[in-house]
Amino acid sequence: MSDTSEQVPAAGNGLLDRRWFLKSGGALAGATLLTAKAGAAREPWTSVPGTGMSESGPPSRYENHLKRVNVGSQPGTTGAGSSRTPLEHLDGIITPSRLHFERHHSGIPDIDPDRHRLVIHGLVDRPLKFSVEALSRYPTVSRIQFLECSGNSGAMIAPEPVQGPASQMHGLVSASEWGGVPLSALLDDVGIRPEARWVIAGGADAAMMSRSVPLDKILDDAIVALYQNGEPLRPSNGYPVRLFLPGWEGNMCVKWLRTLKLTDRPAMTKDETSKYSDLRDDGIAELFTFPMGVKSLITSPSPGLSLGAAGVYQVSGIAWSGGGRIRRVEVSADGGRSWADAALDEHVLPKCLTRFRSPWRWNGGPAVLMSRAIDESGSVQPTRAAVLEGRASNSFYHVNGIQAWQVGADGEVRNVYV
Amino acid sequence: MSDTSEQVPAAGNGLLDRRWFLKSGGALAGATLLTAKAGAAREPWTSVPGTGMSESGPPSRYENHLKRVNVGSQPGTTGAGSSRTPLEHLDGIITPSRLHFERHHSGIPDIDPDRHRLVIHGLVDRPLKFSVEALSRYPTVSRIQFLECSGNSGAMIAPEPVQGPASQMHGLVSASEWGGVPLSALLDDVGIRPEARWVIAGGADAAMMSRSVPLDKILDDAIVALYQNGEPLRPSNGYPVRLFLPGWEGNMCVKWLRTLKLTDRPAMTKDETSKYSDLRDDGIAELFTFPMGVKSLITSPSPGLSLGAAGVYQVSGIAWSGGGRIRRVEVSADGGRSWADAALDEHVLPKCLTRFRSPWRWNGGPAVLMSRAIDESGSVQPTRAAVLEGRASNSFYHVNGIQAWQVGADGEVRNVYV
Repeated sequence: MSDTSEQVPAAGNGLLDRRWFLKSGGALAGATLLTAKAGAAREPWTSVPGTGMSESGPPSRYENHLKRVNVGSQPGTTGAGSSRTPLEHLDGIITPSRLHFERHHSGIPDIDPDRHRLVIHGLVDRPLKFSVEALSRYPTVSRIQFLECSGNSGAMIAPEPVQGPASQMHGLVSASEWGGVPLSALLDDVGIRPEARWVIAGGADAAMMSRSVPLDKILDDAIVALYQNGEPLRPSNGYPVRLFLPGWEGNMCVKWLRTLKLTDRPAMTKDETSKYSDLRDDGIAELFTFPMGVKSLITSPSPGLSLGAAGVYQVSGIAWSGGGRIRRVEVSADGGRSWADAALDEHVLPKCLTRFRSPWRWNGGPAVLMSRAIDESGSVQPTRAAVLEGRASNSFYHVNGIQAWQVGADGEVRNVYV
Repeated sequence: MSDTSEQVPAAGNGLLDRRWFLKSGGALAGATLLTAKAGAAREPWTSVPGTGMSESGPPSRYENHLKRVNVGSQPGTTGAGSSRTPLEHLDGIITPSRLHFERHHSGIPDIDPDRHRLVIHGLVDRPLKFSVEALSRYPTVSRIQFLECSGNSGAMIAPEPVQGPASQMHGLVSASEWGGVPLSALLDDVGIRPEARWVIAGGADAAMMSRSVPLDKILDDAIVALYQNGEPLRPSNGYPVRLFLPGWEGNMCVKWLRTLKLTDRPAMTKDETSKYSDLRDDGIAELFTFPMGVKSLITSPSPGLSLGAAGVYQVSGIAWSGGGRIRRVEVSADGGRSWADAALDEHVLPKCLTRFRSPWRWNGGPAVLMSRAIDESGSVQPTRAAVLEGRASNSFYHVNGIQAWQVGADGEVRNVYV
């Protein structure tokens, strides 16, 4: 593609106007002019029949690096740990279910769906017990939405920038189509007593993870999820039943959901006091910090995905907010001195990952790439410094600061604080 | 849930108003009142730690029936056949990539992405050869859209209704998030000669499947797809590169895309003359019947998913159209004498599966369930009889007639012609 007037700068250090995507072709990076004979070579797979049909189509053997990363339990525990989505190798907004992040407190229970029951009790007119089959006869909805662990990006509190792939620091966020029964329909059937204000959700794992959820949220958009990306939930994401609270911190979306108890006050469980609370530098812990903040991340380029020759590259990433739709994403190539609007992919859905892209002419010199998301409520993704302000030094939940990637003259990408 | 005024009939034989979903709980089918001790029983998985984290999270072992069906090659061929999506076990709109239908003409080639090239030549200013890496630097888009084999539902032409699961007859349709490079961007770089009108797309399989595509469609919304549901394409769906033409018949979305040749006329390949053409009963074959018609299918209940006791059930299914968005889906429980509007799930996307649901009070007697889709252009899904009108008796492409399921007094569901 020739140099034309469409390649107007939109911000410093090579960021082009996003309309460039509409007006012209791409980078012409690596495309080669065809000589007379060059098109005639036939690869071996064009000459012999391939393998036949199958019941389940696996990924290519050339994509074996596509796996959850940073897999492991905390020392001395059984199944208390996490694995992370390989964000830097994905595109679009859907996370394949097998690569959805996982965070467990006592491993993955092997639940027989025919024996599993969900009990709704407490401040209700008539407590009820639901089988999975009974749940599946209720009215169902499906929506594509993100899920993020509140501990995601916690490594950004480290005094020195942690080096590693983007997924190692930020891979505790994924997006799926979640399908299930609006919890309001089930509560209709048990009958909510007037004094009820909270719902205590408990899981069927050995940790019996439990969290207190305000009744308002439950009645607003909570679902009892049975399906993920069209199929029944995977065991590592709560099979056969999980709570799903759009836009709220992941651990509240209790997996292997077993009990919902309506109460007039929160239960102050271990999972919302000793954990999943936000310690301030004055010694006070903020409890019940539910919604996930507005956030974005450049997934390409990012550490491990180095650049080749100077030229035009696509800067691509994801943005999301517990506050609703993403309204705008800005990208900087000069460490935040100037910003250009990124193009957003077609589906900009509420409380979902949104894919953004910016054309960038890399001049082969050092650069610092950053992205900043703004949601429909007007909330702007804060800087790292603003996120750390007032925090205790070991307080790592709800970190949504701007991530900066430094591109070296050698094309290598590193985590950097600006 | 008690009988209330919200349960107003919307059509004959038990169809309730779709607003019933908003106003009340569900079927109360199988939910049991809790006695004092009933909630106390603990299943074994709540008492022992579960399994640990993993690089890839598999489905539950209790969901082993979740696989592509009707897997097989035509007799005497190698890899010329298909497998189908188990629609009756899925919900929502996304098809898990491993369960996306497949249709091959000479099996699945095992392509090394580093060796694969896409060549664009013919009526262009400068023919170019693209590596996968070069393609990935172009501006990219992603969209969630359906893909349907034009032979899907061909079994509806049989004189007597074929019995079997819904997927056996209708499972050659799936929906994914497709991500890739707008073909218009690549053509910008090769330069389109004024006399070009068609693009001949060829695959790298041993059958070298090839189809002629009008240039207008290519410039409108065609992409060179690299990603499916966030990850690189699966080999059975074209890894590393396939053509994707939103809303048009599946075989034109040439997998393992190897060549794009710009021409002034169609190539009349074997794949658009001896196959994928529509023979009429006057002996004329209609060629180049590209868009897939407006269509819907009730996936639950459907054959193999029998009903239990009389009561309220959720009738659920999928609707789609190559003409754009689904505007409305109607459901009948009395063989088409009366129709009720179905509720549509939140995401009603252009050229995508749309999930519909209707509440239905089954009285325990015989019933015939049908669904009928209308798209945004006003096109109405035709009856089976209308689809067969004027066709040769063995002409099975582009069958989008209304499917009727007969529910017997025993709760069994069968294919029936009405």
